[in-house]
Amino acid sequence: MKPQRFALTPGEPAGIGPDLCLLLASQAQPYPLIAITSRDLLIERAAQLGVAVDLLPVTPDNWPDAPAPANSLYVWDTPLNAKVVAGQLDKANAAFVLETLTRAGQGCLNGDFAGMITAPVHKGVINESGIAFSGHTEFLADLTHTAQVVMMLATRGLRVALVTTHLPLREIADAITPERLERVTRILHADLQNKFGIARPRILVCGLNPHAGEGGHLGHEEIDIIEPTLERLRGEGMDLRGPLPADTLFTPKYLEHCDAVLAMYHDQGLPVLKYKGFGAAVNVTLGLPIIRTSVDHGTALDLAGSGKIDTGSLQVALETAYQMAETRL
Amino acid sequence: MKPQRFALTPGEPAGIGPDLCLLLASQAQPYPLIAITSRDLLIERAAQLGVAVDLLPVTPDNWPDAPAPANSLYVWDTPLNAKVVAGQLDKANAAFVLETLTRAGQGCLNGDFAGMITAPVHKGVINESGIAFSGHTEFLADLTHTAQVVMMLATRGLRVALVTTHLPLREIADAITPERLERVTRILHADLQNKFGIARPRILVCGLNPHAGEGGHLGHEEIDIIEPTLERLRGEGMDLRGPLPADTLFTPKYLEHCDAVLAMYHDQGLPVLKYKGFGAAVNVTLGLPIIRTSVDHGTALDLAGSGKIDTGSLQVALETAYQMAETRL
Repeated sequence: MKPQRFALTPGEPAGIGPDLCLLLASQAQPYPLIAITSRDLLIERAAQLGVAVDLLPVTPDNWPDAPAPANSLYVWDTPLNAKVVAGQLDKANAAFVLETLTRAGQGCLNGDFAGMITAPVHKGVINESGIAFSGHTEFLADLTHTAQVVMMLATRGLRVALVTTHLPLREIADAITPERLERVTRILHADLQNKFGIARPRILVCGLNPHAGEGGHLGHEEIDIIEPTLERLRGEGMDLRGPLPADTLFTPKYLEHCDAVLAMYHDQGLPVLKYKGFGAAVNVTLGLPIIRTSVDHGTALDLAGSGKIDTGSLQVALETAYQMAETRL
Repeated sequence: MKPQRFALTPGEPAGIGPDLCLLLASQAQPYPLIAITSRDLLIERAAQLGVAVDLLPVTPDNWPDAPAPANSLYVWDTPLNAKVVAGQLDKANAAFVLETLTRAGQGCLNGDFAGMITAPVHKGVINESGIAFSGHTEFLADLTHTAQVVMMLATRGLRVALVTTHLPLREIADAITPERLERVTRILHADLQNKFGIARPRILVCGLNPHAGEGGHLGHEEIDIIEPTLERLRGEGMDLRGPLPADTLFTPKYLEHCDAVLAMYHDQGLPVLKYKGFGAAVNVTLGLPIIRTSVDHGTALDLAGSGKIDTGSLQVALETAYQMAETRL
């Protein structure tokens, strides 16, 4: 059995999301891929870019069975609230953006889609419209009634998951609790098994402090929280190494023997990942009952309509979602 | 005029420092390089390694004028307090280690040496001996009466300096004051000019928080402290870009146009540097009135006497010290 079809959300309509979908359509995908967005928007953006893409309308009543041929794209038309000018945010379209995400997410839940791939949204303009929104990840967690999700970025040869994500630096230390570390580690471990097909995941865990606390001289969280939690989970058979100093861990000696790194916070783990994987990194949300991957870049408003963009990250996001769905079946 | 001679301190005698000096001696250096350590220790370690190195005794009364030939090493004999067993720390030799550093540092101050290159010491065993010691950097700051020094790591194509160094994560945010940021930036800027010969250094500055605070949504230190400080220093003509998100900054688009990155803390800047420069990174202490570079690895007690070590980092440390001294003249 193969996954049936996937959803692609172009995100912020004034950004490069629509452009990415159109440029991507020059090549056929291995599965039916349904862009959930406004058909009018795509027609206009294609004209602006000077690309010819055959937009094939689909709905839940007539899902396609085969992938769209090259230079064509399946579109589940979702109406805009206001006409879009490339590069210009308009809060009138915030509800439209969320509607595309809801369609994709619910389609994953009800089995219409084997997974969803998201292009970037603009958090600011959604919040300005009066809708509280802290990101794709949190939105999908709510939609799927998931209490804890885990953000993981991946590129060829390296996966980095985070215990904390978008927190001010001064709040991080207090957020590293045994409960959170255990929940995140369990989700990472389970999803590496179930969605990535790794029978016995090998996970390297960073310390919180420089030099992983250097035996308590540079902080006590390793001794008080991280070591006991890892030891308890090792007792269940998990292959967890650490806590290790972050500037030692990201070297070949360690990385060659690991399936994922668990970093304690955003700027400890992601600079290396993005340095290594620049232009070809993918953001994967673990812990959801659905498969969701995303590009690792922003809306790039200044480049919308210019054609000067690279579909590399979106291609990795698609490939990753396909592989995860195949593994999961 | 050329620099005259350099000092090399092998650091912890039970670690790989003596081995590194002996293996290095297989090739001639461009300048006279004086190892400051015990001649007996080197004789014994050379026998253990099975290498033949001619140890040429020197003292401040008879400095050599020419580099030592290949397979020979100048040694300023400095007596041990206790016989050394490779791999076994002995606090009896703590005073010996510090004496080698004092000789090198004072030699730099009085003009005997154009710079000093250090192999790793073991902080723990020095402290156990009853001597308070928090590292080479602080020791040399004291010796040279320097109030503020800056730690910078460098490898080919990337230099990363740190605003804070060995602090527990939870203390970092409060340590980022306008005064400290200004002092560190001034030292980095001045040393890039004076010791690296860069007339107008281009410095990329990281934010403290993820996404550089995202306009205040993820922390306020960028708005309250970093931006105003950088703006003030830009007013003096410094080329400072930032604060930038750390996971965006370490990508080619930015790095191609910079001479150094200023990271706010250890694990924000050093994982990328060590990932990129593994085995060939050098630690440079900025702000001292002398030139000091160091290997970027530890004492590796388990490898002492084994011969299974790589002199790559030491060679980069030497080359960097030579270049800095040439620039400074």
